[in-house]
Amino acid sequence: MGSLFDKNPELRRIYEKGLEVRKKVMGEEYVNKALSEATEFDRELQEMITIFAWGMIWTRDEVMPRKIRSLINIGILAALNRGNELKLHVKGAIRNGCTEEEIKEVLIQVGAYCGLPAAMEAFKIAKEAIREVKEEMSKEGKR
Amino acid sequence: MGSLFDKNPELRRIYEKGLEVRKKVMGEEYVNKALSEATEFDRELQEMITIFAWGMIWTRDEVMPRKIRSLINIGILAALNRGNELKLHVKGAIRNGCTEEEIKEVLIQVGAYCGLPAAMEAFKIAKEAIREVKEEMSKEGKR
Amino acid sequence: MGSLFDKNPELRRIYEKGLEVRKKVMGEEYVNKALSEATEFDRELQEMITIFAWGMIWTRDEVMPRKIRSLINIGILAALNRGNELKLHVKGAIRNGCTEEEIKEVLIQVGAYCGLPAAMEAFKIAKEAIREVKEEMSKEGKR
Amino acid sequence: MGSLFDKNPELRRIYEKGLEVRKKVMGEEYVNKALSEATEFDRELQEMITIFAWGMIWTRDEVMPRKIRSLINIGILAALNRGNELKLHVKGAIRNGCTEEEIKEVLIQVGAYCGLPAAMEAFKIAKEAIREVKEEMSKEGKR
Amino acid sequence: MGSLFDKNPELRRIYEKGLEVRKKVMGEEYVNKALSEATEFDRELQEMITIFAWGMIWTRDEVMPRKIRSLINIGILAALNRGNELKLHVKGAIRNGCTEEEIKEVLIQVGAYCGLPAAMEAFKIAKEAIREVKEEMSKEGKR
Amino acid sequence: MGSLFDKNPELRRIYEKGLEVRKKVMGEEYVNKALSEATEFDRELQEMITIFAWGMIWTRDEVMPRKIRSLINIGILAALNRGNELKLHVKGAIRNGCTEEEIKEVLIQVGAYCGLPAAMEAFKIAKEAIREVKEEMSKEGKR
Repeated sequence: MGSLFDKNPELRRIYEKGLEVRKKVMGEEYVNKALSEATEFDRELQEMITIFAWGMIWTRDEVMPRKIRSLINIGILAALNRGNELKLHVKGAIRNGCTEEEIKEVLIQVGAYCGLPAAMEAFKIAKEAIREVKEEMSKEGKR
Repeated sequence: MGSLFDKNPELRRIYEKGLEVRKKVMGEEYVNKALSEATEFDRELQEMITIFAWGMIWTRDEVMPRKIRSLINIGILAALNRGNELKLHVKGAIRNGCTEEEIKEVLIQVGAYCGLPAAMEAFKIAKEAIREVKEEMSKEGKR
Repeated sequence: MGSLFDKNPELRRIYEKGLEVRKKVMGEEYVNKALSEATEFDRELQEMITIFAWGMIWTRDEVMPRKIRSLINIGILAALNRGNELKLHVKGAIRNGCTEEEIKEVLIQVGAYCGLPAAMEAFKIAKEAIREVKEEMSKEGKR
Repeated sequence: MGSLFDKNPELRRIYEKGLEVRKKVMGEEYVNKALSEATEFDRELQEMITIFAWGMIWTRDEVMPRKIRSLINIGILAALNRGNELKLHVKGAIRNGCTEEEIKEVLIQVGAYCGLPAAMEAFKIAKEAIREVKEEMSKEGKR
Repeated sequence: MGSLFDKNPELRRIYEKGLEVRKKVMGEEYVNKALSEATEFDRELQEMITIFAWGMIWTRDEVMPRKIRSLINIGILAALNRGNELKLHVKGAIRNGCTEEEIKEVLIQVGAYCGLPAAMEAFKIAKEAIREVKEEMSKEGKR
Repeated sequence: MGSLFDKNPELRRIYEKGLEVRKKVMGEEYVNKALSEATEFDRELQEMITIFAWGMIWTRDEVMPRKIRSLINIGILAALNRGNELKLHVKGAIRNGCTEEEIKEVLIQVGAYCGLPAAMEAFKIAKEAIREVKEEMSKEGKR
């Protein structure tokens, strides 16, 4: 069972739609790397993420604009203590047009609702993410 | 040490500002009840919440509108598995002008990022909160 | 947007497959109730759960038998502190043929890895779930 | 396998020591109830708790007085979102000689480090626990 | 108080039994290192783990085979966000005879029940653990 | 909005009091670094932490001595899985006069109440923190 599409070929369309959104938000380079490094072990995970999160949820942007989804995700990931994903989604937030001020506001709110250690950790990660994504976007712009 | 103001009288102004916002978002009846039932044991907690969360964070609404803060809080509280507070903040979201559709979108996102059990629990709580807050707001309107 | 199928009609087949497994594991009565009580607010959640968890994961039973999936889920839900879902999945485990002894072993393991309070809570919930599901199954048998 | 002692009879002495401490801290009535209601399903859990937590840890009171252990446990259980156990251990704290003021201080600290929702929940639970344990202790005193 | 056995010499037998199982599952090299590096500060922790988790739980293999315990532990540790222990227990799972396919199935289930970020993190850790443990086992085989 | 004091100048006195305590507990070098590296993005976070946690809570030392607060915080941070903050607060505990034995006792209690993986992680972090803080304190003493 190497791919979800072996048994569920009808998922292909949602996957393609999701892949497009995922690349726009997470950055084409990151997504291409994640997919090209996928093995028998984690290919189906990559497909599920692309279908379920990106194809079925992040595409619902007529109801909830991606910018707001990004801010909500930053709050959620800081609460869940998932630093790696938090970093990726801070970058995604910037790509989606969130300002640094907005990201800061979410994380200050995290301080009151998740506790100060959660906020300190998240601020450190976000600071690094913002610096990195600016470089990435400036490189992308030059191509 | 019965009140924060005994030692920190300068906090009074921020407390007053916070109290006003807290009542607007959480409902006057709920806040009055929380404060009037406070004893020696939990009065300082009530003061801290009003000062820190409401006076120092929820007042920063020129940067982040309260409606967005409500949506972010719903995501955070669902992630933290704090059902009682989640219920209060779903009600607050409706008072802040969020639509049921927006709340639903946050909770669907919770499904992907916090797992399906977190979403199921949160949807159940939100459904109840929305029904109740509508009744509360209709009563308030009649007065 | 009342139903996932409005925009993604191709998901119907996986939904149907998932619905069948969900009913077998969670009990027909519970699933029918969950679906018939669904409103505009939570219908899409119910559809997502049926498609993603039941249609796409619980159907992979040639790789992982449902009995083992049930035991793993009990461990996960106890760790996540999600009591309501834990109760439903303890019932599901019994329906899937797990013995009380096996469930007990998972929860003892929870004691060592998630801490004793997690285990105490989970044992209490499981005890109740086992009593209830036996009654449910005996009623079902009589029809 | 009905009891841990079937295979590990040497644990009996630590169990007896633990049982004595457990009763002193949690209240004799509560412990007797927990043990008398234990079935084949959860007897070994009760034994493990008594041996591991009470016999091997709460007995180390020359290094760490029980009063301090109680305060630490209140912080931990509030952080873990384990309300039922929190309630029992607030009662235990009072039995161990902690004052209401000390319990309040721990929970205010919880507000800063675990977030305000964790503190609000914990204060509510503690308030109830203190009221109940005072009644229990007054009844016990009368016997 | 340098060792648990100073005050509880009767625990020695369970410790020895646990030590044997621990070495078989976690690898002799890892366990020897953990024990030889233990100081006054953490020796008793190492003893407790060996006695409680390994001597009292992992030895109950007539009720629950070690292979299943490994799979359950992978689910639990992914849910708890304990990456270091997750890595060690993925290695343990392979030593206990679990296949990569089985580990993958647990982690896909983690995606649905703990959320996609938990699954992504766990897949990354597991991939690394599997590569490393294969090398370790091949070295051990050559000796 | 570069600083909390722009809009809330009255918070200055509590900030100053908090800053003094924070430096005594966390070490002057660490606090100076945190403040000097603060940018527009995280200056307000630093101010909030100093005011709320240090100025309003850690100053309440007539009710709860700092040494006990440190021990409680170690328990809380281990429970929350916040390793970076745990490390800083183990160092703070030593600066506040806690002994290694007392820290060890808290972490053994973590083993029973948060599970063994939480304890293993926390012991590793604490061991490193204790070694480092001793060096830091010996350097400070020489100046």
